[in-house]
Amino acid sequence: MKLYEKLADEITEAVRRGVFTAGERIASVRQASQQHGVSIKTVLHAYALLESRGIVESRPQSGYFVRDAAARALAPAPPAARAGRKSAAPPPVPATVDVSRLVLSTLRSIRAHDAVPFGSPYPDPSLFPWRRINQYANAIARRHASWNLIDDLPPGNPELIRQIARRYAENGLPVDPGEIVITLGATEAINLSLQAVAKPGDTVAVESPTYYAMLHAIERLGMRAIEVATHPVDGIDIDALAKVIARQKIAACMVMPNFQNPLGFCMSDERKRQLVELLAAHEIPAIENDVYQELYFGDTRPSTLKTFDTQGLVLHCASFSKSLTASYRIGWALPGRYRAQVEKLKFLNTLTTPSVPQVAVADYLRQDGYDRHLRHLRRVYRQQASIMSALVLRFFPVGTRVSTPQGGYVLWVELPAAIDSMRLYRAALERGITVGPGMMFSTRNDFRHFIRLNYSYPWTAQAEAALKTLGELATGMA
Amino acid sequence: MKLYEKLADEITEAVRRGVFTAGERIASVRQASQQHGVSIKTVLHAYALLESRGIVESRPQSGYFVRDAAARALAPAPPAARAGRKSAAPPPVPATVDVSRLVLSTLRSIRAHDAVPFGSPYPDPSLFPWRRINQYANAIARRHASWNLIDDLPPGNPELIRQIARRYAENGLPVDPGEIVITLGATEAINLSLQAVAKPGDTVAVESPTYYAMLHAIERLGMRAIEVATHPVDGIDIDALAKVIARQKIAACMVMPNFQNPLGFCMSDERKRQLVELLAAHEIPAIENDVYQELYFGDTRPSTLKTFDTQGLVLHCASFSKSLTASYRIGWALPGRYRAQVEKLKFLNTLTTPSVPQVAVADYLRQDGYDRHLRHLRRVYRQQASIMSALVLRFFPVGTRVSTPQGGYVLWVELPAAIDSMRLYRAALERGITVGPGMMFSTRNDFRHFIRLNYSYPWTAQAEAALKTLGELATGMA
Repeated sequence: MKLYEKLADEITEAVRRGVFTAGERIASVRQASQQHGVSIKTVLHAYALLESRGIVESRPQSGYFVRDAAARALAPAPPAARAGRKSAAPPPVPATVDVSRLVLSTLRSIRAHDAVPFGSPYPDPSLFPWRRINQYANAIARRHASWNLIDDLPPGNPELIRQIARRYAENGLPVDPGEIVITLGATEAINLSLQAVAKPGDTVAVESPTYYAMLHAIERLGMRAIEVATHPVDGIDIDALAKVIARQKIAACMVMPNFQNPLGFCMSDERKRQLVELLAAHEIPAIENDVYQELYFGDTRPSTLKTFDTQGLVLHCASFSKSLTASYRIGWALPGRYRAQVEKLKFLNTLTTPSVPQVAVADYLRQDGYDRHLRHLRRVYRQQASIMSALVLRFFPVGTRVSTPQGGYVLWVELPAAIDSMRLYRAALERGITVGPGMMFSTRNDFRHFIRLNYSYPWTAQAEAALKTLGELATGMA
Repeated sequence: MKLYEKLADEITEAVRRGVFTAGERIASVRQASQQHGVSIKTVLHAYALLESRGIVESRPQSGYFVRDAAARALAPAPPAARAGRKSAAPPPVPATVDVSRLVLSTLRSIRAHDAVPFGSPYPDPSLFPWRRINQYANAIARRHASWNLIDDLPPGNPELIRQIARRYAENGLPVDPGEIVITLGATEAINLSLQAVAKPGDTVAVESPTYYAMLHAIERLGMRAIEVATHPVDGIDIDALAKVIARQKIAACMVMPNFQNPLGFCMSDERKRQLVELLAAHEIPAIENDVYQELYFGDTRPSTLKTFDTQGLVLHCASFSKSLTASYRIGWALPGRYRAQVEKLKFLNTLTTPSVPQVAVADYLRQDGYDRHLRHLRRVYRQQASIMSALVLRFFPVGTRVSTPQGGYVLWVELPAAIDSMRLYRAALERGITVGPGMMFSTRNDFRHFIRLNYSYPWTAQAEAALKTLGELATGMA
């Protein structure tokens, strides 16, 4: 093949792949000659060939542009749709269940913007003060000469760290700011914490059902999960956990004592203390996921395992993703005696968390609008929890039971045992409704007839109709 | 202890830790009563005790404020300094060498803003178009109703992906946009790529010397590194690598064919092809770190291993951190046949890369200022490379040799064999000058008399004086 033909083929292929789209200008002859290291003549040849193929057209004094018809003919779907975004077709569901694959398909399904997002793990972003946070981000952009990566290296931006410590102090949960390590969301905090305390092949105790990111962290690091019975009101069964510990070596215990996802319970102070003491007696580190800490329905912020920890064995993980901004990805860990390891692992894993989001969140927190925003958010979530609970019980088949969340924004629904929630998930998707199938929350088969529903989105007639449809589908399967 | 005493102690401790600083208002009596779940009377009692201790003062109609004297007396150092930031004292250097600890100490040393940053691994941010990138970030903030985390979930923002594919195409390196996975800098891309192809206990071949993040990734994942002799001009010794492969099982090979850090070479097309063919013959995946791809000193962007890969065995990793913005942390992987695993691992590791930086970089790239910026950057770096090389040879002891970088912004300096670069590193730090000790780039002891110097910062009289001091220190040790 001649050099000019090769160049023409490359550009054709780029148009086909959506790299250049209809109406876009491609490189000038001079640029292309430099970029590809070929002569001007070769480029002119290639462009002439592309014109004769109908791929590009030349416009006087402007250059060469991709023809609309060519882009349409060559690129069967825009790159966005091919990447799975805003695609109307339901994504494929794996036949055999692999928790992380199932979770990924569920997430892809909620990318369809017109889908009813009952299956979403994320809070409705429209309730968040994005305009104010962006204003802070803008102000920083004007204020600083340049972003200094180095200032905000692990453990993180010092002012953000101080503001986080301050919120704990104001809620009667004093922490040492020197313990805080800023991470990329709670996801990274949990991953780093687990890696700091356990190694591949180790066994880690989790709640059952458990938040799937816990299972992902364990799977990713080549560890084994052992699931411990967990009560929908009291939390993890401490006696059952004690028996597991007596029987085998447990490297760590991962729990979510406040507003557990998916069950929604809040462990009592007494049970939190018992859990911390049991683990401390065996020198077992506890990884505490406290991402819903600000979303309580009671009068005050609940205690944490950290509150009762005298040995530095609790690695407390949290973020602003559920209460302030999900896309800024600001989380943190309070790793107790494992602080140095977690800071080092943060550095090795992602080097640092972006500066602008760190400083913007710190500035927002300092200006004091956060508590007002949170009071509103808690009121809305509490209200929508009771609306959704009542309607599930009305629309769903006899035998359906729902959780009583004490905070957060998800409802756990037990369907009659005959219903396979994977079937319901697929049937609902075909009608543009997403749900979280119970299989995501366990490596066992115990929750096949459960679903998780997100109630953070505004309660509209469309949402109510979708819930009714879901109930009818379930009734048909019962 | 009475309840009000406990509350007063908590607040005193928070002031001591710098959570509340001089002149700051603490919670109102009503707020504190709610937050701590105690009566108004208890709070009044506690606040009176704090007043009597001189910790806070009440101001009529305003509330309670931390007294300046109290903050000074209780908090021996501001939290920023305690967190290691802008501290003038040199940080401790570990006695025994552990690569990642040594790198962390070096990074901490360059946080001192008045230090001469020869030891920095980062480019001078003042040369970057931060003002324009921030403008795009601001425009996004005004344009969007709210950040939609879901749109930009892995593989990442579709427009950013398209722009990245387009740059490759314009440089004659066509890639399929559907292969790109956006990551948090190249650091995460490298970590995920390695995890996708190898497991704990596996052996991974690296260059010697190698960029330390490669060693970190291997260390963090519990794998073993085997170092292969690497020529300062030709790159990794392909015959030596073939012998290693013949002798033992190699799970992956991690290399930096373009402007290797620290050596600065650019492998020829012929050698790149040979390397790809050798690895393909044994089905060994290659992880290619191409972060300096835009910083070439020649006329055109060099080829990559990916250019010669017909088997999908090359996992190509890169970022904008070295050429556009370090603090936005936008990197990507082109993982070949391992794409699905890398995308899944990205999701498990950090869920997603923040949206605003993704969209801001995509917008910046579309507006076409990038090439002009890069031309300027390349000219500056090329110039400063030759200035620094010449001055090292003038100031340093006889027997000193320097690399001839073909791109990037670091110089590799071989000192006379008698000089211990760890001693030089410590002596230089005491004079406010940082260098990168050779021990960071290997697990062996081969580079004890080498240092890496960063020439991206503007060449000033102060920089020249610092280099002279460094040369004198080295001469004293020779």
